[in-house]
Amino acid sequence: MIGSLFAGHLARVCEVSVLTRRREQADGLNEQGLRVSGKSERLAQVVATDDPDELPEFEVAIVATKASGLEAAARSLQGRFPDATVVTVLNGIGAEDVIRSHGAWPIVSGVTFMSGTRHSDTHVQYILDTETWLGPFEETPFEVVQDIANTLVASGLHAEALPDLRPAQWSKLLFNAAVNPTAALTGLPHDLHFAEEDDPGDLGHLVHGLVDEGKAVAAAAGVQLHDDPWEMNVLATQRGSAHYPSMLEDVDAHRPTEIELITGSLVREAARHDVPVPLNTLLYALVRGKEASWQAH
Amino acid sequence: MIGSLFAGHLARVCEVSVLTRRREQADGLNEQGLRVSGKSERLAQVVATDDPDELPEFEVAIVATKASGLEAAARSLQGRFPDATVVTVLNGIGAEDVIRSHGAWPIVSGVTFMSGTRHSDTHVQYILDTETWLGPFEETPFEVVQDIANTLVASGLHAEALPDLRPAQWSKLLFNAAVNPTAALTGLPHDLHFAEEDDPGDLGHLVHGLVDEGKAVAAAAGVQLHDDPWEMNVLATQRGSAHYPSMLEDVDAHRPTEIELITGSLVREAARHDVPVPLNTLLYALVRGKEASWQAH
Repeated sequence: MIGSLFAGHLARVCEVSVLTRRREQADGLNEQGLRVSGKSERLAQVVATDDPDELPEFEVAIVATKASGLEAAARSLQGRFPDATVVTVLNGIGAEDVIRSHGAWPIVSGVTFMSGTRHSDTHVQYILDTETWLGPFEETPFEVVQDIANTLVASGLHAEALPDLRPAQWSKLLFNAAVNPTAALTGLPHDLHFAEEDDPGDLGHLVHGLVDEGKAVAAAAGVQLHDDPWEMNVLATQRGSAHYPSMLEDVDAHRPTEIELITGSLVREAARHDVPVPLNTLLYALVRGKEASWQAH
Repeated sequence: MIGSLFAGHLARVCEVSVLTRRREQADGLNEQGLRVSGKSERLAQVVATDDPDELPEFEVAIVATKASGLEAAARSLQGRFPDATVVTVLNGIGAEDVIRSHGAWPIVSGVTFMSGTRHSDTHVQYILDTETWLGPFEETPFEVVQDIANTLVASGLHAEALPDLRPAQWSKLLFNAAVNPTAALTGLPHDLHFAEEDDPGDLGHLVHGLVDEGKAVAAAAGVQLHDDPWEMNVLATQRGSAHYPSMLEDVDAHRPTEIELITGSLVREAARHDVPVPLNTLLYALVRGKEASWQAH
């Protein structure tokens, strides 16, 4: 869905090829093009294929899969176009390491606040036209990051290059780690319950406790946060219409969730720095248990 | 269901009247009697009514509702038969205080390990013929407790009078507080996942952590446990067929759960003794959030 938003816009300023998982989607995109509605109106010509061997040479690959598709996407890039740059735009942290384990490309880290709804294989609705932030991973020169951000802006998206992405990436990680599993386990969309702190059993206390654990890990990892995840949470719950986090959709549909890249990464990072994160560990175990229950029943 | 097991057996040794919530159930019981199958085979004559004003005088009332029915049951006893003794057999702790707030009867605390399945308004299957333990609450003489236990035994049930029930009651409380919300939130029946402690994200760690918090509260409350709740958990998961905790059934059916008498009581008791119980508080908030989600959607 995020990938379609990038492709649908970028086709205005460069050649775009799309690697799909399913053959039918590739056929549909080649025949009908990729339609974007909502905040932008586009009908983009793209070259689509489900076979990595058929991918035309590219300068930049944007990997914007869900966590569950990351490993397969990285594998399909392996051995191809060593001079290309790979941009990762996923929830959580650690996607760059998965890409790195499949090749030596320069990597650009991304975090996006855009959102959309997938209506069909060839139609995506652009709902929140918020920013995508990019930053260098390891030794990637900042100019490379700026070039890519400029191309995104030229295509009609909102993007910014930051010398250090980690403050933004971690702010979003801590926000997601507090909100997404809580929504997935309770069945609540991200609504006002998530900010309530009157009664000791109110959900807001839990969300606050999760955020505080995350902040301690960020501090131990030497990351200064870009935004306060608790304030992000309070603001988001006051927006009016409650957001339905993707982890809740995944749980409702009995699909694998993004728990590993979100809470799993945070718990492992905490262990690395000897920071106790009992609440996040508990949510990690509960969501994994929930995934296991689909096998058990 | 537990109430029907008591009524179906006790009718052999004393007159039994049953207060039902629904008129049809009372009619069915008066017409067809109460059938017990499984570990016992009984067809018991009982006097049933849904109107507390029609209750014949009784010497002993057994309150074995689910937590959600406790307040209504206690209210229906208010002002009646002050010389009777009231026995509470509910999950969690604190049912005695709810009864006390409606009358000055001597109270006997109970905890049961029996289980059964309700097949219809007039038929219950007796599955686990394990013990019911009784103990005095406040100033109730121990002889009263022994009399009631003897009557249960004479009716064909397994029962024991204990001078102090709290060690057993708290062992079951801590077991239930660790297992039931975990099952309700993950969707897992009480299976081997609950004892797994290999990976840091394994559910067993969480269950162990919940039990350890509970033990700290028990110690602060001056209660010595009868059984170790962690060992109860490990043993139960090794029994072969996984038990489906009632809180999971409640969540599946979008019914109010017993979270208040189980985890809620433990969290309040912890606050009284200044014992931190972050993991139990988190589960408390999540299950309450889950209950709220049935209103929110």
